[in-house]
Formats: sequence, C-alpha cells, structure tokens
Amino acid sequence: MKALRFSDNSLVLADVEKPLVEGESLVRVIRSGICNTDLEIVRGYAGFEGTIGHEFVGVVETSPDRPDLTGKRVVGEINVGCGRCGLCIAGDPRHCVSRTVLGIHGRDGAHAEFLSLPSRNLIEVPESVTDAQATFTEPLAAALGITERVEVTENTTVAVVGDGKLGLLCAFGLALSSSNVVQIGKHPEKLALAEKRDIETMLAADAAKRRSEFDVVVEASGSESGLALATDLVRPCGTIVLKSTFAGATRIELWRHVVDEITIVGSRCGRFGPALEEMASGRIDPSDLISDEFRLDRGVEAMAEAARRGILKVLLAP
Amino acid sequence: MKALRFSDNSLVLADVEKPLVEGESLVRVIRSGICNTDLEIVRGYAGFEGTIGHEFVGVVETSPDRPDLTGKRVVGEINVGCGRCGLCIAGDPRHCVSRTVLGIHGRDGAHAEFLSLPSRNLIEVPESVTDAQATFTEPLAAALGITERVEVTENTTVAVVGDGKLGLLCAFGLALSSSNVVQIGKHPEKLALAEKRDIETMLAADAAKRRSEFDVVVEASGSESGLALATDLVRPCGTIVLKSTFAGATRIELWRHVVDEITIVGSRCGRFGPALEEMASGRIDPSDLISDEFRLDRGVEAMAEAARRGILKVLLAP
Repeated sequence: MKALRFSDNSLVLADVEKPLVEGESLVRVIRSGICNTDLEIVRGYAGFEGTIGHEFVGVVETSPDRPDLTGKRVVGEINVGCGRCGLCIAGDPRHCVSRTVLGIHGRDGAHAEFLSLPSRNLIEVPESVTDAQATFTEPLAAALGITERVEVTENTTVAVVGDGKLGLLCAFGLALSSSNVVQIGKHPEKLALAEKRDIETMLAADAAKRRSEFDVVVEASGSESGLALATDLVRPCGTIVLKSTFAGATRIELWRHVVDEITIVGSRCGRFGPALEEMASGRIDPSDLISDEFRLDRGVEAMAEAARRGILKVLLAP
Repeated sequence: MKALRFSDNSLVLADVEKPLVEGESLVRVIRSGICNTDLEIVRGYAGFEGTIGHEFVGVVETSPDRPDLTGKRVVGEINVGCGRCGLCIAGDPRHCVSRTVLGIHGRDGAHAEFLSLPSRNLIEVPESVTDAQATFTEPLAAALGITERVEVTENTTVAVVGDGKLGLLCAFGLALSSSNVVQIGKHPEKLALAEKRDIETMLAADAAKRRSEFDVVVEASGSESGLALATDLVRPCGTIVLKSTFAGATRIELWRHVVDEITIVGSRCGRFGPALEEMASGRIDPSDLISDEFRLDRGVEAMAEAARRGILKVLLAP
C-alpha cells in the first residue's frame, strides 16, 4: 500500500506492507488531515520515523475482537497505552509512559491507505457527520479538551492567540461555553472565519491595548511572540492554556507568572465523543477550515502546501 | 535615620529623613531579613531604586488611624494597593496594578531604622514568637501560600527543588500537609536542616532516578537547571509551583508541559496570619535558618555575606 513516510530526514511516498498488527483492527483510510504536528515532525520534532498522520476517518476492514465494527466508519483515539500500568488501568492511556501515538511516536500513522489501531481506540462516526468533518475529530477534541482542564463559564473572558486551524477550533469550542471569546491573529482572512461565527476578533498588533484583561488566554500560535502576548493579555491570577507543541526550548519571562501568580496549563488531547457530538448536532462545523484536498499520491506536495502561510487544513485522500 | 539604599546601580548606607507618609503608620524596625529578592534588586531586577528590604519586625511609633497599635510589635504585609480598584475592593491588594511593594516597587523598605506602611498592612506579633522568628513571617507566608494555590493532602507526593531559605521554608510548610515531601538540593549542610525535621532529602545529582514520580514539584532554586529538574520529576498531569522570581527570560522546553499536560502555577505571596500561627504554636521554627546577624551600619557587608554560597538568612539590626 501507499504511505507518506518520514525517515532519514526525508519525506517520501513509499510502497509498504499493510500494517497488520496482531490483536488490532485494520482500518482503510478514507481521508486524513495534515496537522501542524506533522509539519513539526518533518522538521525533526519528536524524532519520529515512519508513516506520519494522526487525523483520519476510515472504514474498519477487520477487527479480531470487535467483528461488529467491520464495515463501520470510524475515527480513532491516537494514544495506545500499554494497558497494564496504573495510568492505563485508571483509563488514562494518554499519559502512559510506554504509549505509542499514531503517526507521532512508535506507531505508523494515517497518511496511508490503511492503518492499525486497537479496537478500543475506535469510535463510530454518526451518519450526520461528513467524511471531511470527521477528519477534524482529533483536533476538535484537542480544542474542546481545554474545558477539561480549565473552567470556562458564560462570563469567563477568553482570548485565543493564534488564528491557525487549532486556534480557530479552540475559539469555536470555547464560544460554546463563554460569550466573551476574542480570537487574536495576524491573518484577516482567517479571522473572518471566527467573525462568521459571531466571535469577536482582533489583530495581534492591536491586542496590547487589552493588557491584563482576560481570565483565560489560550496560546495556539506556537510562537514565542504569541506566548509573550498571552502573558500580556492574562489578568493577575488568570490562566494561560498552552495548546501548541513545538520543537526546542522557548524563552519566557517566567518571573512575570510568579509575580502575577498566573497558572500555565498544558493541554494536548481531548475526548473524541464530545467532538463528534458537537459536529453531529451542528453546533460546530469545521468544514470551511479546509483549504485544499490532495490525492495521497501527491502527499509530499500536499505537505508543502499545508506549510504555506495562509493555508488552513489540507486533506489527503488515498 | 540610616537606611540601606540602592540607586544609580550602587548600594549604600545613607542618612535620610524618616519616612513620614500622610495617613500611614510609622514603624521602628527591630530586625529585618535579607531576601534573595533584595540580592536580585541589587542585580537590577525590577528596576527598583530606594531603601531595600521587605522582611521585618518592628514597633509601631505612631498610627493616625489606629492609635491602639502604638507600642505594639508588628510585622507588615508588603503590598499596598490603591484601595479603589476592583481587586483592592475584593480584598486582593497583592495584585492591584497600581500597588506599591515595600522595598521592591515604589516604596522605601525595611533595611532602615524606620519604615512607613498603612495600618491595615500591620499585624501584631504573638508574644511567643521571637523577634528573629518574626522576621520570617513574610517568607514563611509565601511558602505557606503554595497550599492556597495547589491542593496538597496527606498522600500528595511533593518534591521541593532548591535548599535555599525559601526552599527550606516551603518544605517545612508542605510537611504540615503531606507526609511525602522530599527536599532536593546541592548543599548537604542545608539539607540537614530538613532532615532534622524528618523530611526526606536527596542531592540534586541523584534526583533524576525519581523521574515522573511527584504529584507536585516546587521550583525554589531560581535556576534554569532547577526548572528542568522540576519538569523531569513531575508526573503527567502533575503540577509545578514556581516560587522564585529572577531577572530576565528563562529557557524552558514548554512542549514537554503540553505533551504531559502539566500545570505550572506561579506563587508569590501568602497570608501573614497563618505564618504567625504556625510559629506561635511551635509547628514551624525557622530560627536555625539564620546564618548571621549584622548591625544595619554594616548593611553593605551583610548583603555581600548573604550572597555567599552556603549562607542562609542574614538579619540586620538597626
């Protein structure tokens, strides 16, 4: 089968064996989505080698322990825990130290014709959710995961720094809980997608005037300047949520967080169920975040396109 | 009166007017304590110029609005809010944006014969607390303030990184809540002060083997290496408490905090009442943290001594 692979510092479309892992389900990929983490991996983040990609919708071909899933359209939770440690037993494979992560760590990913995951990772997609929408399940779950970590209520003032795909999904999700969400970014055409949803927007250049105003600031730009802006915007005793993973060390004026007693919350993944529900109910429709779709054959080109300034989600179809 | 002042990048013992501020109380200083923040100020942190020092015990000379305080032995909360903003009205002058801070920001401090504070900042010292102990009220309150920000119970596993004065006070305070506190540092003679109190200790060089083990890690070393060690020691979804303020930007591998969904909590000040209570009851006695005491006349020399490796608290007596 075809797979988009990163190894020896190069990204290639390769012909490889189908991933047949004992005890796991085989999924035929319908669509996969290119995430910034894919771009970071190709820059050397996490030291991963193998088939990249972790956002997907597919159809179960075979499942040894859940034959009822065969033929079903599914998405898949990307973390596969060891199943035996304290965290796994407590239902938290996301933080198992021996975990593999689809297309990110120790496990081939989704930019391929087929992928393998344990059946416990798979979740059926409601009929009303389109294939294109379903590819957003993982990043939308990550965005909605913020409220698993930080309380956001109707009156909580929230700023989202960054108007990329993840930043937009964060704002769409947070706007379900608070009516005081402001999306901050550098791209008027991306901010327009938030405005369309009645979310207030602001150019980053104008944001300094709202210093110390926000209860919660979500850093979704993945840049040092975004983090500095988040520190400017959060009120004393407020909370900064870090959503972006990026390679290397960041310079940060941590003494400001001590003096103002700010809390910084790292937030990575979220639960797939609520993300599917929000899309099934129509409360969130991320379809207009899709900039382009490529055949998997042109995966290398698609990755270059996804890295281009101004581009949001790029999908791949095997 | 004599005062230890920092201005034009130099530290001098100066002869200045008594600080008579309209509406405030005049306090004759009995003892003041040199804090690492004093040392940082002399290195340029916070850009403060004036009389340094914020840890003190003194006797009220005059108080326009609280004549009953005259002659009483007091300590003083160091943040003076504007009294009019939302935060001040809600009882939180610690974060008032217009606040002055004794010996740190916009207000002459405690390494002097006299100081001025509003009477609402003063709190009487119980008889059973010695003068030397009372000078620890502010740093002990800061140490105890951790549990205002993070839940620590009997079974919470806690590591305190740093065996300086603040690190030791943090461990002493946390050991009142949890029986699983480990003090980590580089100075066997300082760690011995924790051992004396039945707190487990560990040299920083040996700490790496306890990777991902702790629910809560307190960073009280004020160094990048301490922060990196704290990140190693905290478990996924655990909490790092930042206690140290230090100048400039810090390099930190923030992606690790995102991936492991770690919370970083900035913690600066705490309440004076509980700190005095712990000392009055004998549950915490910081007296053996005193390395030396100097007359205020020799304040410049005392500051040099306080900066020396291996030295804990240095007191000044006018």
